[in-house]
Amino acid sequence: MEDVNIGIVGLGNVGMGTLGILAENASQIALKLGFRLQVTAVCSRTVQTKPIPAALGDVFRTNDWRQVVSRPDVDVVAELVGGSTVAAEIIDGAIANGKSVVTANKELMALKGAEIWERAIGAGINLAMEASVAGGIPIHAVLREGISGDRITALYGILNGTCNYILTEMEKHGTSLASVLAEAQRLGYAEADPSADIDGWDARSKLAILAALAFGEKITPSDIFTEGIRRISQVDFEYARHLGHTIRLICGAQQTSDGLLLYVRPALIPCSTILANVRGAYNAVWVKGQYGADTFYYGRGAGPYPTGVAVVSDLMRVAREIRNGSPERVSPFAHERLGEYTPIPITRQKRAYFLRFRVDDRPGIIAALAGILAEKRISLEAVLQLPCEGKHDVPFVITVAPTSEQSIQEAVDKMSGLDFLLEPPLALPMEAGL
Amino acid sequence: MEDVNIGIVGLGNVGMGTLGILAENASQIALKLGFRLQVTAVCSRTVQTKPIPAALGDVFRTNDWRQVVSRPDVDVVAELVGGSTVAAEIIDGAIANGKSVVTANKELMALKGAEIWERAIGAGINLAMEASVAGGIPIHAVLREGISGDRITALYGILNGTCNYILTEMEKHGTSLASVLAEAQRLGYAEADPSADIDGWDARSKLAILAALAFGEKITPSDIFTEGIRRISQVDFEYARHLGHTIRLICGAQQTSDGLLLYVRPALIPCSTILANVRGAYNAVWVKGQYGADTFYYGRGAGPYPTGVAVVSDLMRVAREIRNGSPERVSPFAHERLGEYTPIPITRQKRAYFLRFRVDDRPGIIAALAGILAEKRISLEAVLQLPCEGKHDVPFVITVAPTSEQSIQEAVDKMSGLDFLLEPPLALPMEAGL
Repeated sequence: MEDVNIGIVGLGNVGMGTLGILAENASQIALKLGFRLQVTAVCSRTVQTKPIPAALGDVFRTNDWRQVVSRPDVDVVAELVGGSTVAAEIIDGAIANGKSVVTANKELMALKGAEIWERAIGAGINLAMEASVAGGIPIHAVLREGISGDRITALYGILNGTCNYILTEMEKHGTSLASVLAEAQRLGYAEADPSADIDGWDARSKLAILAALAFGEKITPSDIFTEGIRRISQVDFEYARHLGHTIRLICGAQQTSDGLLLYVRPALIPCSTILANVRGAYNAVWVKGQYGADTFYYGRGAGPYPTGVAVVSDLMRVAREIRNGSPERVSPFAHERLGEYTPIPITRQKRAYFLRFRVDDRPGIIAALAGILAEKRISLEAVLQLPCEGKHDVPFVITVAPTSEQSIQEAVDKMSGLDFLLEPPLALPMEAGL
Repeated sequence: MEDVNIGIVGLGNVGMGTLGILAENASQIALKLGFRLQVTAVCSRTVQTKPIPAALGDVFRTNDWRQVVSRPDVDVVAELVGGSTVAAEIIDGAIANGKSVVTANKELMALKGAEIWERAIGAGINLAMEASVAGGIPIHAVLREGISGDRITALYGILNGTCNYILTEMEKHGTSLASVLAEAQRLGYAEADPSADIDGWDARSKLAILAALAFGEKITPSDIFTEGIRRISQVDFEYARHLGHTIRLICGAQQTSDGLLLYVRPALIPCSTILANVRGAYNAVWVKGQYGADTFYYGRGAGPYPTGVAVVSDLMRVAREIRNGSPERVSPFAHERLGEYTPIPITRQKRAYFLRFRVDDRPGIIAALAGILAEKRISLEAVLQLPCEGKHDVPFVITVAPTSEQSIQEAVDKMSGLDFLLEPPLALPMEAGL
């Protein structure tokens, strides 16, 4: 069969990884497909400085993406620019020119994925976005087709590699978040401005896409309750360990009888769970299905080659559709069309909680805190205080039986006024459903 | 779009689970597909005793599979009979009648998958077999499409739920294999004749299929070195734990420069690996890719509903192809056609080994064993003897540095003649690549 021609826009880490795989793995890809994937055009603002693998042969190079999306010898455009502005124009341009599209863009697909998909159907082109979430894990293939016969009831992800690296370094070495973050920045694992990662925004986009895939709903990212990891300290890991738990930034989506509950937040998870064994810059997704029960998926969250595998696998899938003359058979969102969902406010979430305090020690502290919990009808389960030096900055933990986030927030607000507290209590939910 | 009609042959556990999901989850399946899956015919030797869900409406019932595969109102035949005799006739009959086929049959697909696939291509029908390996894990979708851009270098699976249940019960409670097996048989987790499970034959079929998928080679199951778990005792778990390891029945496939090394055997794996956290009747697959590095997949190995999800997801995929008028785009074996491989004999495998002895204690034992190891140029790493009562049945362990299986087999053969041994030494490889 005839080659399928690829145009790649964006030659950052993922773009270069994709080119590397297409060059080095070309013969095995052709064995799998029965035809070749040929890179015919590449685009980057700094295209002249990019080392294009010689094995790709003669490739048109430009710094103007318009020249790629309109070329007759391009069948599929890979949008690997990222962000939600120029990337949107590139994808629109490709669709307008009848090109199929593969994208790695979580931000854009989280914000406008449903619209872009409608446009793609209208134009009869193929659209794929495996690389947009959890680069190395083929979670789209799993949710779109692999377990499409199931009805997903809940999904828990570790979707930000930087946060997981930071948390697991803190867990392992007992170091502070600030020092691990500084080291991660030095090594290039974290951005100079780490906010997108450690405040949870990156994870929020990924959860929005996965939840759309899993539940067939048009998720609005800003509906997702999002809390980052800035307040997590060494002390929290120490207390969590004494309770048989550890701490991870959990992206949760849970189908309830009232609607869909979505959140990104640090949470305690039992050390005995497989999810607690996800360490370093890895990602993982735990899926609960009504029929298939628990399944779990794990792999690298990012990196030129792992994400490149996702892009190349998508290119292969789309190329097969093109060579078979078939329209896209499966929506990238797994459903024929996305529905409108009822977002459930986080205040209705019911969990056991871990409440960590830092106090200037004096008599009557437990009585005061327990009084507030009693007033909010929250059952205290345990009080835990590990040995520490001094009396002016004493950490301790109270765990409480399952209660609503609403009650916890009210209790925490009321506690925050108490003069013996050095900072507002830190409340972390304890995930038991894993 | 018009309904796609399904005929189901075989109403055992998987067949009934499949019917249950098709009935209960019908509306969500239709939302995903844009059309309905309609069960029009079912077949079982005891069809009159089977409770067909009322929600499926009017379904033709027969105990003659020929009536299903030839019906004009059947588009896809699900072969859920198992075994390699009648099942082969059913699939041939379906293909001859131009019906697409979904099968859960590991034995048949391991033995004749490549042939059946050739016939399916020739007839222009679709063929799918997600349910044939690791029921609840969509590992076919992953290998066929999800990470198809990668080049797999190795794959390690826990593919037999019964063995994993037995081993992890022994690990947890320190009980003997015989007593756990008896309990498993009582609970219906293990067959009255447990040989297919505990001697590794079931796992071997599954590995043959996964290796074909991962490496694109036509695997002959009988080429796979296969050793079951019968010789594993409580003592082995005790010693393994002291070495930071546990024991699992590992299905391994490793691409080497000489060819493909395939084996099913009990092995020591480090407790710190995620694979060691796979407990009970779960299955798992660890994949190593040249570009995507490590990915891991986990789920139930069997059961009417988890395997039913695999069958229903395949039915959905095949139905999409039918409604789009497209031929099968992707071989169930992930490759356009399967190659001929060079099987590497297990004797060339290089690993560290755990050698467990049971001896009638007397002076000179270590010297005798160490002498044989030295003669075979095997480096002894550690001798471990835990406290035990008596002197007439004393277990202990020697670990050795990486060496070839050939040398180990020669050493074990030579040792077996020593009169202080109560049974031949047990040699288990230590998997370090996980």
